[in-house]
Amino acid sequence: MDTEVCRRFGIEFPLFAFSHCRDVVAAVTNAGGFGVLGAVAHTPDRLDEELRWIDDHVGGRPYGVDVLVPGRIDKSAEGGGGLDAMLAAIPDEHWTFLAELFARYGVPLPDFERARRAEARGGARVTAAGATELIEVSLAHPIGLIASALGTPPPLMAEMARERGVPVAALVGTPEHARRQVDAGVDLIVAQGGEAGGHTGDISTMVLAPEVVDTVAPLPVLAAGGIATGRQMAAALALGASGVWCGSVWLTTEEAETSPAVKAKMLAATSRDTVRSRSRTGKPARQLRSAWTDEWDGPASPGPLGMPLQMIVAEGAMRQITKVAESGNLGARELANYFVGQCVGLMNTVRPARQVVYDMVDDFATAVERLNAITKTG
Amino acid sequence: MDTEVCRRFGIEFPLFAFSHCRDVVAAVTNAGGFGVLGAVAHTPDRLDEELRWIDDHVGGRPYGVDVLVPGRIDKSAEGGGGLDAMLAAIPDEHWTFLAELFARYGVPLPDFERARRAEARGGARVTAAGATELIEVSLAHPIGLIASALGTPPPLMAEMARERGVPVAALVGTPEHARRQVDAGVDLIVAQGGEAGGHTGDISTMVLAPEVVDTVAPLPVLAAGGIATGRQMAAALALGASGVWCGSVWLTTEEAETSPAVKAKMLAATSRDTVRSRSRTGKPARQLRSAWTDEWDGPASPGPLGMPLQMIVAEGAMRQITKVAESGNLGARELANYFVGQCVGLMNTVRPARQVVYDMVDDFATAVERLNAITKTG
Repeated sequence: MDTEVCRRFGIEFPLFAFSHCRDVVAAVTNAGGFGVLGAVAHTPDRLDEELRWIDDHVGGRPYGVDVLVPGRIDKSAEGGGGLDAMLAAIPDEHWTFLAELFARYGVPLPDFERARRAEARGGARVTAAGATELIEVSLAHPIGLIASALGTPPPLMAEMARERGVPVAALVGTPEHARRQVDAGVDLIVAQGGEAGGHTGDISTMVLAPEVVDTVAPLPVLAAGGIATGRQMAAALALGASGVWCGSVWLTTEEAETSPAVKAKMLAATSRDTVRSRSRTGKPARQLRSAWTDEWDGPASPGPLGMPLQMIVAEGAMRQITKVAESGNLGARELANYFVGQCVGLMNTVRPARQVVYDMVDDFATAVERLNAITKTG
Repeated sequence: MDTEVCRRFGIEFPLFAFSHCRDVVAAVTNAGGFGVLGAVAHTPDRLDEELRWIDDHVGGRPYGVDVLVPGRIDKSAEGGGGLDAMLAAIPDEHWTFLAELFARYGVPLPDFERARRAEARGGARVTAAGATELIEVSLAHPIGLIASALGTPPPLMAEMARERGVPVAALVGTPEHARRQVDAGVDLIVAQGGEAGGHTGDISTMVLAPEVVDTVAPLPVLAAGGIATGRQMAAALALGASGVWCGSVWLTTEEAETSPAVKAKMLAATSRDTVRSRSRTGKPARQLRSAWTDEWDGPASPGPLGMPLQMIVAEGAMRQITKVAESGNLGARELANYFVGQCVGLMNTVRPARQVVYDMVDDFATAVERLNAITKTG
């Protein structure tokens, strides 16, 4: 295919794959798309290691990194008080609710003290300072794109990237946010509809993509949200997007590190089985609806905290839940979930990531032929 | 254009226009699309009159009627107790809340007793019996389609339509509902995404359309929800739909009967300015967010009733609000709203309905050319 984005990023298909799994990133890049590694879960050392692995497996083909840089986070996390300040800002009732939840579902409690400290260290990385470390590590590799998933990229990120000639992308959920990103000097906008997995707004891709395209023209826009097939990729390009950004579809690939219990849930799920909930990160994020989201969003819940405090509460717990679910614990299976978009209803088979790319490209061509057949005789 | 739907319905463009305004219906039909009159607001006599007017203005070109047939409604409305039973089922606190709301916003109270009885008569028509009357009136005209906006069409409707050789369409918000409609013998499915105006589910058009296409194949599917431009029409057809069903886009046309205060709000609104609320009909319906939806969905609200009771409470009130808003009353302007989809963000100019059709067809062709340019050199 020939789009501005293909030429600019040196790829065959304007298909960007967001994944926390390095194998998916490399597979998509090697298949002619553009893999983007989600860096938020990693320590700087671990990220460096992952990127080195990718460098060794893509033979110089282009890939990128996505760093979560939230616009607004809990003040305890920005105050410089470190882990202890963050832990102190979490009310006891949240830990109590969690302990009762585990008891009710028959899931053994993890070592919360250890989990708290580990997660607080993770939470510390979704601050501007934490993100900057990850950005520095990323820019030491031959990356072709650095993306910011929440809020305007810190001026430092844009500056550091520009010095190395690395384009900066930003995910947006409204035309207003897109305008702000353009003003901040971003090179590529990802317009992400409310049907997307993870952190989303609530304007749908069908409406958001053309609005953002008009708002930021002539800057290129990738459409995201709900896209898992080639016909949807054709739809996105019909809307004026220069390419697509997909996250969910890789979660059920062979390479994905998705836990088997959650993968099985995703393969069985319909498009109705997701919910936008603050229960995992503190910001509204679409995910599989499960006992976890029902309980946190239910009447007995103390209510999710802000970001990153809710991440500290939730992620250690979810790790334990996922682990225990694998051993067949039914309560843990009810609770288990993961971030995924409404297109989970279209994710019904396990394929290699490479095959997903090829299938999307084939399906894209078929959709364009169908459109041509309609217009030719018109 | 040449699609199965064009051939079957005798139209040039697979563009279906839902409107409560007969002028819009006739204008779209005369421009080569397919106008569908929303019958819910009308008495049988008034509907007959409207359809006669359309017959006189479309010169035999095809048009249709849409009847609201809810699957589940308040039992007081189905019990055969008539208007009095429905009025008796509305708690006093709802009338009190309404009176206080009017006082707080400085809007003079309407004659509620009169309004109640008028609205109860309207409410009575969203029962199966009421809908049947409207269906009988409709089938006495040369209509080319009868559509059911909520729930499975009553077997009687399908039967009556089939006797006259009139195809039946049904709006659905999930693949499961689509399957049920196919089993009920429907001829055309409208897959309506959660970004649509009026009664909606929450699966987006980008995901719902391909899911429903796969579910009901080879039955044709129209995509609805968020569609107001030709690029979106191209996107819908890329997704596998055989055409589109648009409602919102007509509300800001020259012909639309939308009240001037609400029309001005729509022209100014962005895609963020809608909300899915039960405050007007008792079922979740997307509409302009206004003081009305904020108050009914707020903490002081007694909570919306079921359908059609909430319609009885709300519609007389909204009629008064709309009327008073025209006289410049600021409180009434804050409260005023109407059903509209997220594509309200793309509705920024007043055009004749005919022009909207032509613009969509032009824009569609441009989008297809853009897709071809991308693939040709690939």
